[in-house]
Amino acid sequence: MDNFSFYNPTRIEFGSDKEKLIGQILAEHNVKNVLLAYGSERIKHDGLFVTISQSLTQHGIRYVEFGGIVSNPLLSKVREGIQAAREHQVDAVLSVGGGSVLDSAKSIAAGTLYEGDVWDLFIGKGQIHAALPVFSIMTLAATGSEMNSGAVITNDVTREKFALHSVHTFPKVSVVNPALMQTVSRDYLVYSAADIIAHSIEGYFTAAVQPKIQSRLVESVIATVLETTELLLKDPGDYNARAEFAWASTLALNGLTYAGTSGFSYPNHMIEHSLSALFNVPHGAGLSVVMPAWMKWYHSQNPAQFARFTRTLFGKETAEEGIAALETWFDKIGTPTRLSQLGITEADMPAILENLKGNTRWFGLAETYTQETLTTILKLAL
Amino acid sequence: MDNFSFYNPTRIEFGSDKEKLIGQILAEHNVKNVLLAYGSERIKHDGLFVTISQSLTQHGIRYVEFGGIVSNPLLSKVREGIQAAREHQVDAVLSVGGGSVLDSAKSIAAGTLYEGDVWDLFIGKGQIHAALPVFSIMTLAATGSEMNSGAVITNDVTREKFALHSVHTFPKVSVVNPALMQTVSRDYLVYSAADIIAHSIEGYFTAAVQPKIQSRLVESVIATVLETTELLLKDPGDYNARAEFAWASTLALNGLTYAGTSGFSYPNHMIEHSLSALFNVPHGAGLSVVMPAWMKWYHSQNPAQFARFTRTLFGKETAEEGIAALETWFDKIGTPTRLSQLGITEADMPAILENLKGNTRWFGLAETYTQETLTTILKLAL
Repeated sequence: MDNFSFYNPTRIEFGSDKEKLIGQILAEHNVKNVLLAYGSERIKHDGLFVTISQSLTQHGIRYVEFGGIVSNPLLSKVREGIQAAREHQVDAVLSVGGGSVLDSAKSIAAGTLYEGDVWDLFIGKGQIHAALPVFSIMTLAATGSEMNSGAVITNDVTREKFALHSVHTFPKVSVVNPALMQTVSRDYLVYSAADIIAHSIEGYFTAAVQPKIQSRLVESVIATVLETTELLLKDPGDYNARAEFAWASTLALNGLTYAGTSGFSYPNHMIEHSLSALFNVPHGAGLSVVMPAWMKWYHSQNPAQFARFTRTLFGKETAEEGIAALETWFDKIGTPTRLSQLGITEADMPAILENLKGNTRWFGLAETYTQETLTTILKLAL
Repeated sequence: MDNFSFYNPTRIEFGSDKEKLIGQILAEHNVKNVLLAYGSERIKHDGLFVTISQSLTQHGIRYVEFGGIVSNPLLSKVREGIQAAREHQVDAVLSVGGGSVLDSAKSIAAGTLYEGDVWDLFIGKGQIHAALPVFSIMTLAATGSEMNSGAVITNDVTREKFALHSVHTFPKVSVVNPALMQTVSRDYLVYSAADIIAHSIEGYFTAAVQPKIQSRLVESVIATVLETTELLLKDPGDYNARAEFAWASTLALNGLTYAGTSGFSYPNHMIEHSLSALFNVPHGAGLSVVMPAWMKWYHSQNPAQFARFTRTLFGKETAEEGIAALETWFDKIGTPTRLSQLGITEADMPAILENLKGNTRWFGLAETYTQETLTTILKLAL
């Protein structure tokens, strides 16, 4: 077990109707005037906006609406948000939505209190010494953003997709009400499932130091996803399954499963980023294609861990059986497992390989993931 | 899954040599003058005290020594500590030791900023509105105290053993260096194992609402304890086993495994508190006696969960087999499973039952745990 620091000061308010507490929560933190960040206008129609605005007003908190944040959120929008936050002199940012809105909210919160251009904070040119307090109400599971300090933003001009992290950008309080996630589409549910599994297995399989207790925690998360996804496909209104799915998602990305591990990498995310950058496929769909192919190529490098994975999660023996079981499960829930299902053919491989040249460098994996290796993996995914 | 709030702002600094950072950590928190609470003079001989004092001095931090805290820590000593903290106008409390020292440190930290008598905070007569910041360096695993806000203290006069909890008594930073725990005696290692298991199973078996994901987390903790305790009995110097044991211990009691559960109680701790209050037996030893007896009495009330427990942790089937396997394991590692091994006989039962009258009220279990029921359980433990 390697040395580690674990610190996660986000308070999670989990459960039904918790969004009704938002006014009280902000009042406890002495918030008087908040930037209310959100994505589409959907929240205006489904009653959530009314609930939030009433709760804020009841506690004497003013708010400035800041909508229109899109998936794969953009730097230009973050700059707009910073301008709005300064103009209206807000003293906090409230995110209502999924990870894209929350990542934007964190970036706005840090950028507002930073004198230079906010992009500095993504490229190591500036440091985050303070941020407006961030609060969130989640409407989607599997973003992880609700209980970590990271934010991923795309620079619309350079097309760079970079992240910031800081002790100041943990949400103070995140509201996770599984009932708000019941309207997520069937497709996005299964993509979320693939995403949680991908986040869970990257470290689990690649870490040079992987304590057994951490493997057990990862397996607890994955077992929960396997079970609850099927329950939710049968009955999207199954509150308890939705709740366990949401909590598994939070635990997968709040730092807990990585404590004491070291020497891990994110090859599946690396490959997937090229797919979504080039073909605009949903992140989770790209991941469910990449994972089985990567596993088929990689498993002989860590046979003991693949044996564990197979035995614990699928009750089988060999690595091949475990990988096949996962692939079959992806097929069963209806998330793609082949590039062809994403409309990608062998003719696209040169373009993917070209895009991956930059990606392997950014992920620090250029030596291991040569063009030959990547070709092998991609062919396994055709 | 029930509604819950999860909040745990303690920073864990885990790993070898982390105690050397203590001066820096306190300086980061603007501490100038700290009450250094500890137990026996052992830390003076094994080099730990020198390491700490050098690190503090290096960062210009003064300290006031406050040693002599004993197991099952006493209210009289807490009052002494409060007097010392006030007299020397310290601005923080640093605990160096196990759970007894840290529980005393938390109580001193809260009591120093409370106008009335500190016992008020244990009996609901007073509220904790503030506390001196608490820091800890752990020399023993399985107290859990390093990452929670609770403190258990025994009133030397009334022989009541009660707890305080407050958002103000979370340690700011806890240093957990498994290497510092290598000198823990064989006895205290196995008592610790019993204690972690006890903390894990109370909610697991008694909760009216027990999400499966939370059961999986609990089983991850227990499986780790079962495995690493045996490794440590063979080789006390096995750093990795010591580290996984320590982290399992932290996770068992930092609130994580209770998120989303409800309607649980602590009957094993309730009964054990009377044993240690009356006979001053080590807490873990008392628990390994109480647990199998309580389980034999209780299991028919939650057969599904006992089946899970037996299957997942011992690969067997019936509740009786699971309980027998746990009892056999306790025997194997050498922690007692019978009151007689603690020197307690049937003649002591009236005194225990009398003491439990107050305890059952304090634990809110007076209706369920009648004198008749308690007699049944105690007889199973003879």
